[in-house]
Amino acid sequence: MTVTTLSTVDADGHAVRSALSDAVGRLDDAIRPVVAYHLGFCDEHGRPVVADGGKSVRSRLTMLAAHAAAGDGLCGIPGAVAVELVHNFSLVHDDLMDRDATRRHRPTVWAVWGDPVAVLAGDAMLSLSHEVLLDSGSPHAMAAARLVGKATRDLIIGQAADVDFEHRNDVGLAECIRMAMGKTAALLSASAAVGGVLAGAPPATVAALQAYGDNIGLAFQLVDDLLGIWGDPAVTGKPVFSDLRSRKKSLPVTWCLESGRPAGQALAQWLAQSGEPSEHDLRAAADMVETAGGRRWARAEARRRVRTAQQALTAVTLTPEYRRELCDLADFIVERSA
Amino acid sequence: MTVTTLSTVDADGHAVRSALSDAVGRLDDAIRPVVAYHLGFCDEHGRPVVADGGKSVRSRLTMLAAHAAAGDGLCGIPGAVAVELVHNFSLVHDDLMDRDATRRHRPTVWAVWGDPVAVLAGDAMLSLSHEVLLDSGSPHAMAAARLVGKATRDLIIGQAADVDFEHRNDVGLAECIRMAMGKTAALLSASAAVGGVLAGAPPATVAALQAYGDNIGLAFQLVDDLLGIWGDPAVTGKPVFSDLRSRKKSLPVTWCLESGRPAGQALAQWLAQSGEPSEHDLRAAADMVETAGGRRWARAEARRRVRTAQQALTAVTLTPEYRRELCDLADFIVERSA
Repeated sequence: MTVTTLSTVDADGHAVRSALSDAVGRLDDAIRPVVAYHLGFCDEHGRPVVADGGKSVRSRLTMLAAHAAAGDGLCGIPGAVAVELVHNFSLVHDDLMDRDATRRHRPTVWAVWGDPVAVLAGDAMLSLSHEVLLDSGSPHAMAAARLVGKATRDLIIGQAADVDFEHRNDVGLAECIRMAMGKTAALLSASAAVGGVLAGAPPATVAALQAYGDNIGLAFQLVDDLLGIWGDPAVTGKPVFSDLRSRKKSLPVTWCLESGRPAGQALAQWLAQSGEPSEHDLRAAADMVETAGGRRWARAEARRRVRTAQQALTAVTLTPEYRRELCDLADFIVERSA
Repeated sequence: MTVTTLSTVDADGHAVRSALSDAVGRLDDAIRPVVAYHLGFCDEHGRPVVADGGKSVRSRLTMLAAHAAAGDGLCGIPGAVAVELVHNFSLVHDDLMDRDATRRHRPTVWAVWGDPVAVLAGDAMLSLSHEVLLDSGSPHAMAAARLVGKATRDLIIGQAADVDFEHRNDVGLAECIRMAMGKTAALLSASAAVGGVLAGAPPATVAALQAYGDNIGLAFQLVDDLLGIWGDPAVTGKPVFSDLRSRKKSLPVTWCLESGRPAGQALAQWLAQSGEPSEHDLRAAADMVETAGGRRWARAEARRRVRTAQQALTAVTLTPEYRRELCDLADFIVERSA
């Protein structure tokens, strides 16, 4: 292989974006522009733009896993497109459910077109995700579709648990982790595994990719939760202390509540309050999470998960350069700032 | 075959409801009760009830088509469950988008649990619909899943066109028919075809079932539109003149607007008004549709479509008793009052 790793990633990224654009082309005039807008292909008037289409972590995972399992470069593409569609379906519906008006520094779909269109745009992406795999012509299409289908169900179940948590004050760390395994890890795990499946990898390799994905998935959520409290609004595109503002039972917060430490008890009292918290209140709550040890725990746990993920890949035969890429992607997940 | 046709339908209905219940069992505690409620398995507190789970037209179509194509009685079940799930996913999201608070004489999902849960319950059913087919073990699972997947996309596209129509005053009959072919006919067509596919029927038979389904699909929508104006609220469970109340560009209304007749022009003026119409206004508008000929046209067109559907089935080899059942189901669609 003469291309450098970076240019392979670029070439992959291009091929996936192009296939994603083709998939969106299956929709009609009423819904295609909305989906294309959300994916960063155009602005809200349908004019082509170079907008932020997101980090594309999931499709990169699929492509790297396919390469690592010694598949040809292209076999992962339908899987990469499918997981991006599932991820973006969930974002459009999440933004609607959470009433988030901004995503990737642009107004969200419901904020531009209203609720019904946001419901339908998400539905369309979910539906397309299945078609893309089943129509791919891959001999492994069905196995891949089953994998992505199961992950989609887990994602929806995790999201439902997350919504349920909003009405509860007794959320424990164990169920919070279970929720994150569904909401975040399931699709990341399937993203890696589906690359292996489409490359015709043996079951042990697919299982290793799945274990890798599960672990980076939880690391991803832990870092997301840290950024939801201490992230730089200019980088994340979200308001400062956003998760505390909505009194979210995130992983570091839940850990503090179970810690039994004084700062954890103070945090529990703070969470039980109602009304709009001031900037000062939010900073005080963030300090409680820090003092109780939640920030340190989440960072350490994310790093531990990343190491576990990387170890899972050493047990099976993978092309070394792409194994390294997968390990680097795991590191990126804990180091990222947005 | 010793069982009578009617008891076959009953036995089929039981088997489908049981498989549907199993599929719903794949969901977790946060979302399963909501889906089970919508499908009529339980009340909003999770207590088992015998509630109206809908007419189950789609799953009956699948089962009858599988029997008619000489499949064994059970091969259609995963298809029947999948199409019921797709149909019910669309109902839950439609009720949310249209802010309909009542369905099958019970409060709708969003009205009981709120918008986020309604979004997720619909998502969960859509996702399950694919899994049920792909996990069925049928040698025709993939072909069936592709068929249902394509129909789901058409349904969503049709629904998006319907939402788009609300903001427009220039909707023509041709695009209104195209919208109905997507929103209503696509899934009915796939429901019949998927029964043939799962029974291993030859392509000509599948195509005939599809043509049958397309035609009864449009008939179904025409009758729905008639019931949306003249249906008996006690039977339909919807308010009197409900489609006129929302100034919906239904098929009979759109036909009147294109008729060039004086009553059609009066109807156009009436539709262009804003504000809450009185009972007297609604009755006057219904009379305009009748005078312009929209009611007569819709009924005649529905009957013509049903005949075309029935003729499509005579061109291929089908088990006579089940062909007759399919023809009876087509007749039921135009004669129904809810």
